[in-house]
Amino acid sequence: MSHAPSAALRSRHDAVRHACAAASVDALVVTSRSNILYLTNFTGSSAAVVLTPDRLHFITDFRYVTALEDVQQSPEACPDLQLTVVEGTYDETLAKLLKGLGVARVAFEAGNVTVSRHNWWTGALGATKGAPVLVAAEQMVEKIRVRKDDYELATLRESARRLSEVAREVFTEVRVGRTERDVAQAIDRRILAAGFERAAFDTIVASGPNAALPHAHPGERTLSENDLVVLDFGGVYRSYCSDLTRTVILGTASGRAREVYAAVLEAHNCAIQAVAPGRSRFAIDAAARDVLTARGLGEAFGHGTGHGLGIDIHEDPKVTRRTGDPAAAPDDELVDAGMVFTIEPGAYLPGWGGVRIEDDVLVTRHGVELLTSVTTDLLEL
Amino acid sequence: MSHAPSAALRSRHDAVRHACAAASVDALVVTSRSNILYLTNFTGSSAAVVLTPDRLHFITDFRYVTALEDVQQSPEACPDLQLTVVEGTYDETLAKLLKGLGVARVAFEAGNVTVSRHNWWTGALGATKGAPVLVAAEQMVEKIRVRKDDYELATLRESARRLSEVAREVFTEVRVGRTERDVAQAIDRRILAAGFERAAFDTIVASGPNAALPHAHPGERTLSENDLVVLDFGGVYRSYCSDLTRTVILGTASGRAREVYAAVLEAHNCAIQAVAPGRSRFAIDAAARDVLTARGLGEAFGHGTGHGLGIDIHEDPKVTRRTGDPAAAPDDELVDAGMVFTIEPGAYLPGWGGVRIEDDVLVTRHGVELLTSVTTDLLEL
Repeated sequence: MSHAPSAALRSRHDAVRHACAAASVDALVVTSRSNILYLTNFTGSSAAVVLTPDRLHFITDFRYVTALEDVQQSPEACPDLQLTVVEGTYDETLAKLLKGLGVARVAFEAGNVTVSRHNWWTGALGATKGAPVLVAAEQMVEKIRVRKDDYELATLRESARRLSEVAREVFTEVRVGRTERDVAQAIDRRILAAGFERAAFDTIVASGPNAALPHAHPGERTLSENDLVVLDFGGVYRSYCSDLTRTVILGTASGRAREVYAAVLEAHNCAIQAVAPGRSRFAIDAAARDVLTARGLGEAFGHGTGHGLGIDIHEDPKVTRRTGDPAAAPDDELVDAGMVFTIEPGAYLPGWGGVRIEDDVLVTRHGVELLTSVTTDLLEL
Repeated sequence: MSHAPSAALRSRHDAVRHACAAASVDALVVTSRSNILYLTNFTGSSAAVVLTPDRLHFITDFRYVTALEDVQQSPEACPDLQLTVVEGTYDETLAKLLKGLGVARVAFEAGNVTVSRHNWWTGALGATKGAPVLVAAEQMVEKIRVRKDDYELATLRESARRLSEVAREVFTEVRVGRTERDVAQAIDRRILAAGFERAAFDTIVASGPNAALPHAHPGERTLSENDLVVLDFGGVYRSYCSDLTRTVILGTASGRAREVYAAVLEAHNCAIQAVAPGRSRFAIDAAARDVLTARGLGEAFGHGTGHGLGIDIHEDPKVTRRTGDPAAAPDDELVDAGMVFTIEPGAYLPGWGGVRIEDDVLVTRHGVELLTSVTTDLLEL
């Protein structure tokens, strides 16, 4: 397993400390597993971090101590890490650590901590004189993660490159007579064989009328002549996700199938062309949506055009229609160099079928870089 | 995909309604994906449920409407379901629905809802006259899920049976010269080939010194002569998890390896023999722990003896040491007929290696039923 260099971790810590200072808090409790990985290279499933101006307090239980020590002795060690091994529960250990910090205001990740857990923390700290006040913080680390650093870009490029290779070979699995589930499992095997740790999500193989369901589970349906088949799959490579969709047809495409496919492909291409630093994520969505609307398929495209990719399969930026959400302030609306997201318009016609075409893109300083690379021609298999 | 019969869903709803009445609330907002599946048969990833005395309000977005309608037209339809399709966001849709219910107190799942989400709900409801008060509820559905019904038991038995078959064949994959990662991927392929939807968690193949890490990631280490190899894997069959661990040795076991293995196996057997309705989960843990302590391996067994299995891979009951946790009241302490959990003692000796042996058990009315079935002899491969 490869890891981010120590210097990259240090830059990430600095960025979070800067955000803490801006929010007038003395420390941040990090509980999101993805954020912990981002700040420490730790890939285990149980840990908590308290980032202070001069330390990264790392709480984990005995199961992960040896693994952590191994990373800490490698060139990719997490800077300023101070280990606290869990005694009792994680929350007891965390409360004790927070009481001992001697600071006044500690932020926590409101989007990750449950009401139960927050209630417990408040009770445990409230009884102690000099214990810090807990301050709900939103997206403090995620706002930094949205712009990928060089290590992340190299890893995401490799993840997308490997997924593209998988995609080019996957078409041979799509044959009349196989079930959707068979094909999905064959895709999953190819993902693992390509060096991914795991599939990034449950692989979708949606055929015939099922292709009208954007999130269909692959089932016992047998692929048949003239089916449109939506293949949507992703991989996690060294903790970073890639995501790709192609739609193929078994046999010869009807006029209607060609028409819908061409509309979705044009929407896909227009959205990619609309990507550049400083563009509104809503405008990128509109670039795809306007094409489909003009072809009478606006209603058939019920989801957003794309989502951010990184340690999580769904991150910011969300490339969607503009909503009334007041959180979408202007500086949150614009895409910027270093952001990575999918472009995946689709058209779904109940009872008939559907088409989706998805690639992963990186916003560069001057425009867009396509990370995935597989033909977008309508393949007749 | 098979589903729970409508009558089972109805019983589950009745049990939740009973818990609501006992907590003096008029409705429960269910946001936990596993709890939604338990109450509705819905396997999609996005939904919310509001269970009232006479309705199950089901909120989902357009992507899942067709899939839901298909289930609702099947013999396994969810009773009293009333669909609300998301307009705007899930939370906007939920707030609007709650305002229209005309009830005073609505419980929500405090262990599932984040502080961010709760803050938003409170803001959205607080401004409206006649909107219900939100009441934090703990484990309301989970406390019902802990005792499996007949449909669940049949599914868990089949899940464990298939996993046992996988296990019997998996030993052929463990060979000198292969990497841990190769073996893990081979296990994952066998899990899929056996009809599981997916692996229940990241498969563990921990060899030689890595076997001392209870949650090692399979890596590039090559299996070598005289390695102990811990193989820990699980499958999700029709949404229900099974989980199994065996430890094998490459070549001939040393005296020390036999000694540690025999101690862990005795701990495993003693814990299984301690399982019966009305027994304390702490006593079951102690049955394993006492054996290891007597052999000088108490310190080497740093985790709990087992965890519940069901829709989630980690459920109640937790078969662990007694802690100071006041939530562990007597009626929460005793295991009961219908509970399913793992028995998985281990011994981990840093630098040397480790042994873990895990099976899945069901508490019956009179004792215990072993759901997994694979030899527990120390295999020399």
